[in-house]
Amino acid sequence: MDIAIVGGGAIGLLTGAHLGRDHTVHMYVRREEQVEQLKQEGISCSSVEGAVPVHSHLVTEGFLSHDLVIIAVKQDQVPSVLQEIRNTNSSVLFLQNGMAHLELIPDYLNALIGVVDHGALKIDDRTVEHLGKGTIQVAPFKKGATGQSLVDELYQEDFPVLYRKDYQKLMVAKLVVNTVINPLTALFEVRNKQINDNPSIQRLAYTLCEEVCSVFSLPHEEEWERVRLVAERTGENESSMFKDIKAGRKTEIDAISGYVLRKSNRDVPYHQFVVDAIHAKERRGS
Amino acid sequence: MDIAIVGGGAIGLLTGAHLGRDHTVHMYVRREEQVEQLKQEGISCSSVEGAVPVHSHLVTEGFLSHDLVIIAVKQDQVPSVLQEIRNTNSSVLFLQNGMAHLELIPDYLNALIGVVDHGALKIDDRTVEHLGKGTIQVAPFKKGATGQSLVDELYQEDFPVLYRKDYQKLMVAKLVVNTVINPLTALFEVRNKQINDNPSIQRLAYTLCEEVCSVFSLPHEEEWERVRLVAERTGENESSMFKDIKAGRKTEIDAISGYVLRKSNRDVPYHQFVVDAIHAKERRGS
Repeated sequence: MDIAIVGGGAIGLLTGAHLGRDHTVHMYVRREEQVEQLKQEGISCSSVEGAVPVHSHLVTEGFLSHDLVIIAVKQDQVPSVLQEIRNTNSSVLFLQNGMAHLELIPDYLNALIGVVDHGALKIDDRTVEHLGKGTIQVAPFKKGATGQSLVDELYQEDFPVLYRKDYQKLMVAKLVVNTVINPLTALFEVRNKQINDNPSIQRLAYTLCEEVCSVFSLPHEEEWERVRLVAERTGENESSMFKDIKAGRKTEIDAISGYVLRKSNRDVPYHQFVVDAIHAKERRGS
Repeated sequence: MDIAIVGGGAIGLLTGAHLGRDHTVHMYVRREEQVEQLKQEGISCSSVEGAVPVHSHLVTEGFLSHDLVIIAVKQDQVPSVLQEIRNTNSSVLFLQNGMAHLELIPDYLNALIGVVDHGALKIDDRTVEHLGKGTIQVAPFKKGATGQSLVDELYQEDFPVLYRKDYQKLMVAKLVVNTVINPLTALFEVRNKQINDNPSIQRLAYTLCEEVCSVFSLPHEEEWERVRLVAERTGENESSMFKDIKAGRKTEIDAISGYVLRKSNRDVPYHQFVVDAIHAKERRGS
């Protein structure tokens, strides 16, 4: 297949390295230096042998025609990417955290929604470390639409891409974990395991979980067990939001906890608190 | 007058230095080294000329008889100090932050409640820096009891000690300021002025103020104006709770925000959040 990947961050590079072994991969990125490095040296990924050759382009120069376009940018860059690809007939796979970008997807697009649970860390413009092996689960955005054969083609033994029917189930499961673990680890600047190990953080986590479950009518005890498991399994990881705060970057708090606020028709004070608290820390750093 | 001051922290030293000019001051402290230093060198305070000679004692050796005992320890040490002085006939002036210690004052005691709004920083065992001049306002704990003549004796032009009738008014006013400024400056590790300067912290502050005003039936807009004024006037200060967090010490969060929780008969989620958040940071440091 001929695949475009928009975004040269950790997830873009990870996906490019793995899919680039079986497919023709075009990376679309924002900086000329990264275009050059990728063109000349390919992608280096700790879980893939050797450099993986890819084509590379400036995202601003317009898109070629591809069988599949994978959007691997952060949620807040989705609107501008949608501008760039607005005339595409290709299938478009969205890999963002949170759910806020779903509201932006235009009707005519043949959209697929993916949930990534790999751990990955970008080392430099062409190098990514694969910290934790996971899966990419993909479901069609429109009910009844299908992308199964296309998704099946992406599957690799050591990089499973799995077809699912209901994207909402996928997203909400990820959202619960993100909405609990991300803001608290970023607020206290601690690793994921502190959700279980620090009893006061755990009390905050429990109430955040309770709130998000009540908004989406999810079974609270079951979701709480899952949050605890993920925090344990990824204990030594720094969440993406903690990393953003450390690096003085804008976080995805509006796409994650802010989405819960927007979808709620009752008070969710703990979510309100963490949205302002994370924004406070973003500003403090600037 | 013959005055005992229990506690050799910033407020104990500040009070000792000023009152020691007109009165005989006995400092009661916990460590032998501080007893020796105070005995030999007196108290040094940036707003008082020269060293002020004081008597000094280990608090564990028992109390002499005094006209007035000033308790200048932190709230969590009040129970043990009350044990030590339980047979006193002296008037006892309490200078703690928060209101939790009020519940511990035994009935027989001739208790006075003081509210300190000086800024002070302990430099070493005998040295205190007077960062911001303020007042000590004192009211009797029991309705109808009087201590006015005693309080009037403490008054000094450059260190005003003022008699008031209603301690609850005094305390609640201080509590509102403490319950808003202390936890947020400690949580984000910022100076007081950020309550006004960081719009996200200000939003959190506004809701904390709203909650505490609803618990104590106070006029919200008026109290909020006062909080903003205090944050502005003390902008460059680090709150006591921020200092405690930085130094890895236990904070007074249970005496301040915890008191609001205990007195509330409705949900005060922002106060609940900050109590756990500050405890989380205390544990993180340990």
